[in-house]
Formats: sequence, C-alpha cells, structure tokens
Amino acid sequence: MESPWDELTLAFSRTSMFPFFDIAHYLVSVMALKHQPGAVAMAWKNPLSSWFTAMLHCFGGGILSCILLAEPPLRFLANHTNILLASSIWYIIFFCPYDLVSHGYSFLPVQLLAAGMKEVTRTWKIVGGITHANSYYKNGWIVMIAIGWARGAGGTIITSFEQLIKGTWKPEGDEWLKMSYPSKVTLLGSVIFTFQHTNHLDISKHNLMFLYTIFLVTTKVTMMITETSMMTFAPLEDILSRMLFGWQQQFPLHEKESETKPSSNGSSAPKPTADTSNNIKKKHTKKTE
Amino acid sequence: MESPWDELTLAFSRTSMFPFFDIAHYLVSVMALKHQPGAVAMAWKNPLSSWFTAMLHCFGGGILSCILLAEPPLRFLANHTNILLASSIWYIIFFCPYDLVSHGYSFLPVQLLAAGMKEVTRTWKIVGGITHANSYYKNGWIVMIAIGWARGAGGTIITSFEQLIKGTWKPEGDEWLKMSYPSKVTLLGSVIFTFQHTNHLDISKHNLMFLYTIFLVTTKVTMMITETSMMTFAPLEDILSRMLFGWQQQFPLHEKESETKPSSNGSSAPKPTADTSNNIKKKHTKKTE
Amino acid sequence: MESPWDELTLAFSRTSMFPFFDIAHYLVSVMALKHQPGAVAMAWKNPLSSWFTAMLHCFGGGILSCILLAEPPLRFLANHTNILLASSIWYIIFFCPYDLVSHGYSFLPVQLLAAGMKEVTRTWKIVGGITHANSYYKNGWIVMIAIGWARGAGGTIITSFEQLIKGTWKPEGDEWLKMSYPSKVTLLGSVIFTFQHTNHLDISKHNLMFLYTIFLVTTKVTMMITETSMMTFAPLEDILSRMLFGWQQQFPLHEKESETKPSSNGSSAPKPTADTSNNIKKKHTKKTE
Repeated sequence: MESPWDELTLAFSRTSMFPFFDIAHYLVSVMALKHQPGAVAMAWKNPLSSWFTAMLHCFGGGILSCILLAEPPLRFLANHTNILLASSIWYIIFFCPYDLVSHGYSFLPVQLLAAGMKEVTRTWKIVGGITHANSYYKNGWIVMIAIGWARGAGGTIITSFEQLIKGTWKPEGDEWLKMSYPSKVTLLGSVIFTFQHTNHLDISKHNLMFLYTIFLVTTKVTMMITETSMMTFAPLEDILSRMLFGWQQQFPLHEKESETKPSSNGSSAPKPTADTSNNIKKKHTKKTE
Repeated sequence: MESPWDELTLAFSRTSMFPFFDIAHYLVSVMALKHQPGAVAMAWKNPLSSWFTAMLHCFGGGILSCILLAEPPLRFLANHTNILLASSIWYIIFFCPYDLVSHGYSFLPVQLLAAGMKEVTRTWKIVGGITHANSYYKNGWIVMIAIGWARGAGGTIITSFEQLIKGTWKPEGDEWLKMSYPSKVTLLGSVIFTFQHTNHLDISKHNLMFLYTIFLVTTKVTMMITETSMMTFAPLEDILSRMLFGWQQQFPLHEKESETKPSSNGSSAPKPTADTSNNIKKKHTKKTE
Repeated sequence: MESPWDELTLAFSRTSMFPFFDIAHYLVSVMALKHQPGAVAMAWKNPLSSWFTAMLHCFGGGILSCILLAEPPLRFLANHTNILLASSIWYIIFFCPYDLVSHGYSFLPVQLLAAGMKEVTRTWKIVGGITHANSYYKNGWIVMIAIGWARGAGGTIITSFEQLIKGTWKPEGDEWLKMSYPSKVTLLGSVIFTFQHTNHLDISKHNLMFLYTIFLVTTKVTMMITETSMMTFAPLEDILSRMLFGWQQQFPLHEKESETKPSSNGSSAPKPTADTSNNIKKKHTKKTE
C-alpha cells in the first residue's frame, strides 16, 4: 500500500547507473580534461599518458576511497565494461574526425543533460561510499562521511595530485583553502546520508536520494544557465561559522590584531598575523609574570 | 614475590594513556601547529582545513604506520573519543577568547609537564607499533623497527608531505638528509624494543619501558630548560660511523679527492665529488687497461 | 617425451633468481644510483638516507605493485636474506676502499654480464606480477598487465617520486610524457605474458619466458655495445598509432592546425594548440548555429 510518491522514489532509487548515467559522467569528465590547456596536443603525442589521465578523471573518486580504505587502487581496472566505455568515450572525444563530439557537446541543451545526469551519479556514489564504509566500521560515522565525500568529490584531489607529479600544477596555499561548490555540496550530502544511515534522520533512504538528486540537478542546471556560481552555501556557512567561531569576535583581542594589521605588507602575508599575536602574547606574558 | 621496583615498573607499564597523556600529546602537537606562520589566519579563514591539519599533527604517526602496513589510513577516524578530544583541544587552542590557552601554555612549567607527558606516549606508541608489526610478520625485525619508528616519529613525515601538497613547503635535499633529535631517539628506542621483543635483550619489557621513558623525559626536559639541542647522539654516531665507514678514511683515495676539491666552487656543490671520482676512475681504468 | 628444446626452456624457467641474478640486479641498480650527481657525497654524509634510497632502487618495482594491490609496502623488508644481500652490495659499492668495485664494474664485459643478468630478473618479475595479480582478480587482464608492468619497470616511478619529495627533481610535463625503452619493453612483455596466461596465446609459458628473455638480453647487450638507443619500438609504435589514430590525419582539421601553428612561439608551447582548436571549434560552432 505505497503511495504513488513512494513508488516513484523507490523506482528512482533502483535505477541502474550503468549504461546511460555512467556515459554522461565519463563524457563530462573527459570533456573537462579536454578543455585543459595542452590536453589535446598531449593526446596526440602520448596517447597512453592521456588515456591514463582520462581514467583518473573518470574513476578518481573510487580510487581515492579505495586508498583511504586500504583496498587495491587498481580495482577499477577489473571492471572491464566500464573501462571499455570510458576508453571509447575518451577515444571519440579526442580523436573523432572534425571534432564532431566537441561540436555536439557545445550545444547548451546537450551540456545541461549530460551535467544533470552526472549529478545523479554523484548521489549514487555518496550512498555507495557510505554503505561500503559502514561495512568496515559499524557506527564509524566520521569514516562514513569521509568515504562518501571522497567517492563523490575525490576525483579533483586525485587529478590535482597527478598534475603535481607531472609538474603542470604548482600548489599554492590559497588554492588548497578554497573548497569548490561540488566539494561543498557533496560534503553536505555525505553528512545527510550518513545521518540517515545511522537513523538520526527520520526519512527513508529512497526519498532522501530523490530529494537530494533533485536539489543537485536543479542547482547545477540553474548555475549553468545563469552562468553564475551564485548558488553558494554562504548563508549556511555564515550561520555555522557564527555559531562556532563568531562569539569570540566580541572580544577585543582580534580588534587589536586588525588595528595593527594595516602596517603589514609585501609577499609574506600570513606571517604578520602570527607575529602580531606573538607580540600580543609576549605583552600579556610580561604582564602575567 | 616481586620486588618493589618490579611492582613500580609493572604498574607504570600498565598506565592507560587515554585521558591525560593523550591530552598532553594533542596539546603539544596543536601548539606546534599554531606556532607555524599563517596557521592562525588559516584557522579563521578555513576552519575545516585547519582542523584536518591538526588531526594530521595529532595522529600522523598512526596514519603512516597504517599506510606502511596497508591498513585503512582513515582508521583513526573510527576512534570517536580521541577524535573528539583532539578536536576540542584544537578548538580551544585556536578559538579561545583572549587566547587564554596560549597564555597558560607559555608558562615554562606547563610546557615542561606537557612535553614530558607527550614523551611518555612516544614509548607506548613504539611498543604498540612493534607489537602490531609482529602480528603481521613473525620475526620480521626490520619491519618491526620501521613500524615502531613510524608510529613514534612518523608524524613529521606526514605533515611535511601535507605541506608539500599545499605548497607551503619546498623540499630541499639538505633538509631531508638531517634527522631531527626526536627522530633519532625514536629510532634508537625502536631498535632496543625490537631486540627486547625478539628476546635478544635480556630485560623485561616493563623495566625497559620505564627506563626508556625516564631517559626520554629527562633529556627532553633538560633540553627545554637549557634551551640547547646539546643532547645529541654525536658520540654514538661517531663511534658507529667510525666502525662502519671510518676505516676507509685511511686510504689515500679520499685524500686525493679533498686535494682536488678546492678547485670546485659555485652552486653545484655535490657534483664535483662525482666528477672527481669519475676522473680518478677513468685514470685507474686507463692504468688497468 | 619432451624434446631437448623443451627440456632446455623448462630448466631455464625453473632457474632460481636468488643468489646470482639478484646480485646482478642489485649491482646494476646501486651503480645507477651511485652515478647520480651527489650520491657519493650523500652516502658519506647520511648513510641511512643513502641506504634507504638504494633499497628503493633495488625493490622499487615490488613496492609499487604492493601499493597498487593494497599490500603492505614494507613487505620487502621481511625478506631478510635479500635485504642483507642488497645492503652488502650497497655497502661495498659506496664504501669500498680505493673504489675497487667501481673499477671492476667499469670493465665493459662485467657491465654486459651484470646488465644481461638483470634483464633475466625482469622476465621473472613480470611473470611473478601477473601470477600474483591473477590470484586477486580472475581474468582481470588489465590489472594483470598493470601489475606485471609495475613490478618489472615500476622502480623508476618510485625513485622519481622519492626525488620529487627530496626536492632534487623538478617534474616537467615533457619528462612524464616520454616512456623509456625499458618501460616500453616491459609493457610489451607484460601484455604478451598476460595473453599467454589467459590462453589467448598458444605457446607454453617456459618457451615464452625463454624467448622473451633472449630478446631482452640481446637487445640490451646490443644497445650497450653499440652505445645507441636505436633499438626502439618506432616501427611498431608507428603502425599502432597509424591504426588507432592515423586515419583522422586525412581530414583537413589538423592540416589547418599545422598551418596556423607557425605563428605560435614562446614558452607556452602546448597552449596555442588548444587555443587554435578552440578557435576552430568556435568557427564551426558559429557555422552550425
């Protein structure tokens, strides 16, 4: 005696990712790789290296979660069907005559469809990661959040690391600090699904999967159409940070810091703060002694 | 019919690390993080990243030993109590109003107490690592030494690696060469405890733990009070290196090298030696041919 | 009723690598390390670090395949006999008075013998890696190729990574692109042995091992005597790349690219291609719109 809504969401949650959604994910991932400077030239010069990078782009999240759970990082290579699918998509994207696929992909509706379908796979990956982590650590909810997050959004970490080794990417402290929008939304989803899994959230899994996917797809499509990255978590982050760290702002210490700050300049930007707080600390120490 | 000495050391070796010694370890680790330039500014800008770095500082040795034994590097996240403890300490150290904890910590006696207690956890970690490695490789004494060392002093490797990825640390050949004092003393401890474990050292484990801990704590406290790093292993290293590598010094080859060396100058310091030895080699080859 | 040929190859395939071939492998690996600039100076300054690097050079392939299969990367340390052997060779190569070993090794026949024997160990490693991977993933032939390759030629990856961490090697995109000759020949061998293992190649394993080893040794010795790296896979690669990617060359797209290319210059070599193809794409997009 299930309601039509339940039937819909149940049917949705049982959708197989295999042929179509996976294709969309590989398509979006490999197109993102292709738009990196130098990627096309490299594919002609050294196809094996390009193929390897493409596989990292397609299966990065799975590889990262394997590493974090001490499972063979090569396991994704044992799934021949998916490897073949991803390889074919890499092949036609990079080597198709007249660049037909790129032209087809440059249509906005095609991009929207592919991006939307890719977001659907994100939900499946988060849920899969959490279930998998739960089989290792019963009630290890921090591990569950971490693995769900890694599988859903860990591809960027793996590909950044590959670029670091190849020398095409120089890390900067600032880049590391900023989390991208997909990373944030995946973390949020991972937290929600973990709470659902540990029964702290009174909602059935298929309903949550449906709602979260709808949220993912609509925000992604909206962001692509309006060409903004407006859909941020700024309000949520603001409230959280005000709750956790904001109350100290009332105290005079950091006002002092911001007063003394303008005198600092030059390349060693982060240092002055530490120096200042050290100075203040020394002053206080003198007083207390 | 145990002697009072045995009773004392047995009781000591059964001390639980959990609340107080662990707190001291987290306190010292996070304070070390806080004194890095830019750490405070980063904590305000991106608390999640700062928290993650703090966790690496607190649990780095365990993570490294997990990687080396192919166990999930995330396992430390499953121990909720310790994570909560370390997180609380990170929180109060970085976000406490008026920086009260830092002021309290700047008292020398507090620092001495915390540092001394942290050294106690080092013994427990080495012993734990060796026992754990032994459960994998019976009589694999090199593995046991390596794991004991990794768990006792591997945190610095993990945090250096994190800084490499973040781009805040540029590796230099010279830095890699120098082992720090904690690293050396942990290696020594790891070797001693492994020999004890394989019954090559005729001393009971609790006695050895007590003596080694006393040694660790006294050297650490002495070094902090006198503010020197005098307590080096220079004599021991000297004897060892004289035993292993010193006898070749008598031979004329390296005298020749040092004679020809002064002509070399400039930035490529290591190269000349290789060139010189190549030259000498070529000469010899000509003679022998 | 085996033919003498079969008896010969069977006996060959049952040869133990242990004392002599392993010694040759360690000798060649450590000599390669010694010829790096600064390696000798470092060995005198910090023997432990030099020993560790030497172990990575000797056991790198095994370590990489362990990481890829989520086995303890330290496992090689549990094989005390091989560690002792490799350590002794490291010791006498770096610290032998009058540099006797280097002089002996500078004889071409000695080098040829050692290099030939080292190539024999490569076959054994590839076969061992494939058999090992097969025990994890039945019919996972991509994994088998990857593990065979990693164990046979993965040492360079591990040592490059170590140099990256030590800061003595700055990665450049171009270096990553080029596969060395040993890397290519190991990949070829890994593919052939995997096909043999999955019964797609109608040849017995011992025959294949014999033939492949003969091929490896003769090409290696020829290359060393003629001092060329002529023995490339250029024809094979050419055919393969013509089969896979060559047919697109007939189409006008890339001719346009090469026409527009000469205008590009400067340091950012890979970029112009991407820009060009973007321009072309935009043109096409305009046409199609």
